[in-house]
Amino acid sequence: MRVPYDLKRKNYYRMKIGLIGFGRSGKAVANVILQHPDFSLEWVLRKSAKQENMVVRDFIGVETQDSGLIYSIQHTNISELLDRLPVDFIIDFSSEDGIYFYGEEASKRQIKIISAISHYDKEAIQYIKRLSKTVTVFWSPNITLGVNYLLLASKILKKIAPWADIEIVEEHFKLKKGISGTALKIADKLNVNSSDINSIRAGGIVGKHEVIFGFPYQTVRLVHESISREAFGNGVIFAATNLIDKEKGFYKFEDLLLPYFNE
Amino acid sequence: MRVPYDLKRKNYYRMKIGLIGFGRSGKAVANVILQHPDFSLEWVLRKSAKQENMVVRDFIGVETQDSGLIYSIQHTNISELLDRLPVDFIIDFSSEDGIYFYGEEASKRQIKIISAISHYDKEAIQYIKRLSKTVTVFWSPNITLGVNYLLLASKILKKIAPWADIEIVEEHFKLKKGISGTALKIADKLNVNSSDINSIRAGGIVGKHEVIFGFPYQTVRLVHESISREAFGNGVIFAATNLIDKEKGFYKFEDLLLPYFNE
Amino acid sequence: MRVPYDLKRKNYYRMKIGLIGFGRSGKAVANVILQHPDFSLEWVLRKSAKQENMVVRDFIGVETQDSGLIYSIQHTNISELLDRLPVDFIIDFSSEDGIYFYGEEASKRQIKIISAISHYDKEAIQYIKRLSKTVTVFWSPNITLGVNYLLLASKILKKIAPWADIEIVEEHFKLKKGISGTALKIADKLNVNSSDINSIRAGGIVGKHEVIFGFPYQTVRLVHESISREAFGNGVIFAATNLIDKEKGFYKFEDLLLPYFNE
Amino acid sequence: MRVPYDLKRKNYYRMKIGLIGFGRSGKAVANVILQHPDFSLEWVLRKSAKQENMVVRDFIGVETQDSGLIYSIQHTNISELLDRLPVDFIIDFSSEDGIYFYGEEASKRQIKIISAISHYDKEAIQYIKRLSKTVTVFWSPNITLGVNYLLLASKILKKIAPWADIEIVEEHFKLKKGISGTALKIADKLNVNSSDINSIRAGGIVGKHEVIFGFPYQTVRLVHESISREAFGNGVIFAATNLIDKEKGFYKFEDLLLPYFNE
Repeated sequence: MRVPYDLKRKNYYRMKIGLIGFGRSGKAVANVILQHPDFSLEWVLRKSAKQENMVVRDFIGVETQDSGLIYSIQHTNISELLDRLPVDFIIDFSSEDGIYFYGEEASKRQIKIISAISHYDKEAIQYIKRLSKTVTVFWSPNITLGVNYLLLASKILKKIAPWADIEIVEEHFKLKKGISGTALKIADKLNVNSSDINSIRAGGIVGKHEVIFGFPYQTVRLVHESISREAFGNGVIFAATNLIDKEKGFYKFEDLLLPYFNE
Repeated sequence: MRVPYDLKRKNYYRMKIGLIGFGRSGKAVANVILQHPDFSLEWVLRKSAKQENMVVRDFIGVETQDSGLIYSIQHTNISELLDRLPVDFIIDFSSEDGIYFYGEEASKRQIKIISAISHYDKEAIQYIKRLSKTVTVFWSPNITLGVNYLLLASKILKKIAPWADIEIVEEHFKLKKGISGTALKIADKLNVNSSDINSIRAGGIVGKHEVIFGFPYQTVRLVHESISREAFGNGVIFAATNLIDKEKGFYKFEDLLLPYFNE
Repeated sequence: MRVPYDLKRKNYYRMKIGLIGFGRSGKAVANVILQHPDFSLEWVLRKSAKQENMVVRDFIGVETQDSGLIYSIQHTNISELLDRLPVDFIIDFSSEDGIYFYGEEASKRQIKIISAISHYDKEAIQYIKRLSKTVTVFWSPNITLGVNYLLLASKILKKIAPWADIEIVEEHFKLKKGISGTALKIADKLNVNSSDINSIRAGGIVGKHEVIFGFPYQTVRLVHESISREAFGNGVIFAATNLIDKEKGFYKFEDLLLPYFNE
Repeated sequence: MRVPYDLKRKNYYRMKIGLIGFGRSGKAVANVILQHPDFSLEWVLRKSAKQENMVVRDFIGVETQDSGLIYSIQHTNISELLDRLPVDFIIDFSSEDGIYFYGEEASKRQIKIISAISHYDKEAIQYIKRLSKTVTVFWSPNITLGVNYLLLASKILKKIAPWADIEIVEEHFKLKKGISGTALKIADKLNVNSSDINSIRAGGIVGKHEVIFGFPYQTVRLVHESISREAFGNGVIFAATNLIDKEKGFYKFEDLLLPYFNE
């Protein structure tokens, strides 16, 4: 992994980030990027005109040198923005159609794309795949380091012990509707029927996923507990750091993790 | 709680036990009683004639002074047995109709009854209630100290915080059929719909019950893990010790635990 | 428990609260009180003059009818404040000497005191005890419902099974110094040597306490997990609701919980 | 992985096993091998002359076709035994010097060695390494599939996230002395100071190991729970199955697991 700076030098190059989307997750991600020494948050671009032109760090309440502002797509031309404030990465926490707003410009300018959109339709996926022929595109519907590690580690244990019984338990706050998307993905990867997922809904539990491997005389449990949405921010940092030296192409979280398993 | 002996005296009175039923649970209970200094296992009485007349301690493989034998109801008259080897307690791990074999004799001789039969039909319950008018009768379908404590502690927390969300999770070995009876009982006491119980079935898990109380900003979990069937033995010891000074009447596990909560 | 309002009437009496102290915990408590239909936050009083005269709900960012302001002790006379904005309860999340600022006035006006100060010196404790001769005073160094339930439920299980092995595990964020005060209190109540507490320090874990009761053939675990400081707010609500009909005197959290165990 | 038989054929080749050592672990391993359709337990060889010449399956109480007997080294010449009852694998659950009893014969006859001895001195290790130049030798001081998976999965997560805080917790029965050897090994592999391991000792807990990875906004827990010593048997089966097609050489558990991680 190439480190983007030399710790001994006072002035090193900090990767420039542009963030699209500023809902609850977007804000949490901004919070983490602002506090990270290797990255500089150049701007935030959002649909709504709320907080337009505020300094992000002031809105979030973090003390840092990053002085990026909040822009709204209502009054912003993406090409002009990128001329004025170029970036190395565009992080997308907006919505399913956000990609069309910046895709061409990112491709043209060789800006790496990190998308955390939870779902894309077929058309959008085709569009992203096409972009990935000219630029580095990363997409993870759950951009959390721990959850993606859990997925991979579980798949390996199933390969080692295909006879083990697998159970999936997920816990979330009372009002969360439906089965968690992460649990569904784990079930899919492990060939567990989604109707067999155990969903606990109680109080304000932030989010817990547990994969239980039952052996005749022992049990292995892989557990992930979310503390806050800021975990997405750390996932973004991990993705960006591991994408720095990656060629154009389409990458999933698994592609960034596998090298660590194979070494 | 009256202690049945004076620790300073070398020879103290050990409560005499007769055990009915010698399946897997009965054997585990015998194992615990044999090793306990306050109790003496006078005899085991079982349906089958297997191991008839063997010394229990030899069959189990425990070194102890208790020299009780294994008897079969095929060749044993309960009245003659009790004449020859009187007991203070009859512990019943047999089956639903075992009670009729010894009920009258226990009542006549003021032998306290501890039944761990998991289910009785209406008729049997009426019979037991009638017995309890002349003798001390205790019945617990799950005679485990920890599970019964969990039940009571959960009920109290629900009373303290009726607004908390409650979820029940139970884990058992893969082949266990249906929802665990203990989980059903917990659900019943906490007004949780039995269809909402989360049943995990994986490998050789002995038995785990968890009651989750979800609050907006905190979570309380009450967890019971079984290690082996010998836990029933400790439940029997607890029941017997706490029944020593109890008058005739019908007792449940809750009746023995409540005084500790109220003190 | 007397309910402070009649749900069928549109206008019911909402208990009036004054909050002393506005650090991280104080803010979290204000957040919970503002959103509760039975309580009205009349004012916040703090040492610093930051945010002076701001409306609390605007500062916190909650939509509610409570229109209380933030005051600073630098420019506020407590007697005049209480004349203008009388309250039923003073909630104290300030510091060890906050009590002297409002104690006499609370006593004179029969305002119930709920203090969540983590430590008082001997002199302060004497002062509080003296106040409790004329007014209702409640003090809990850890004003969380779940933790206090855990304490009491653990004490009872130890009484039921004095022979069980007890282990205490507490988990907190990496930077937390020393053993958690809550764990120390649990250890004290259960006669566990404080040097035997297992302290886990890792990442951003908010706070978890586990009391393990080890039996020969079963294990009982009582677990409390904190999600956020707002849990203090729910503790305050519980205390206030249960103190409404309490006479003058000195109360601890245990005093409010015990009736639920004894019923 | 070569499967040692064709499921469609009624008569397939079952790998022949000789077991050295018949303490509590040896018995548990015999129990598992006896019940496995791919392996045949040809004989057990032990130090003591207890149960000499008994049929293993009768002593254990398993119904199976394996008719191997129990032999004692007091009256058995290993060369004659192997002439009469040749095996594919020797499984060693005896003691540190057991290896010298059968090493030369195994080497000469190309019998694969699976040793589960918890500790060898330098001399014994040199001897084993020398044997491994002519025959396949596998050594695992903790021959449990789950624990070895945990070790490897933990090492990978540390590589992925070297900044994460790591804590190790191990739980065992009250009387277990010292820190668990498995926990020490995990600590060693993860560069955790052995004095930082949290050892819980309570009641009859069979064995639990937990590695906690603390991230700022999330926590990953890898947990292994032992249910019984029979888990060693499954480890032996896994090792044997994966060693069938392995050339001469020295193998550790990690060597058998790594291919599953790398695929």
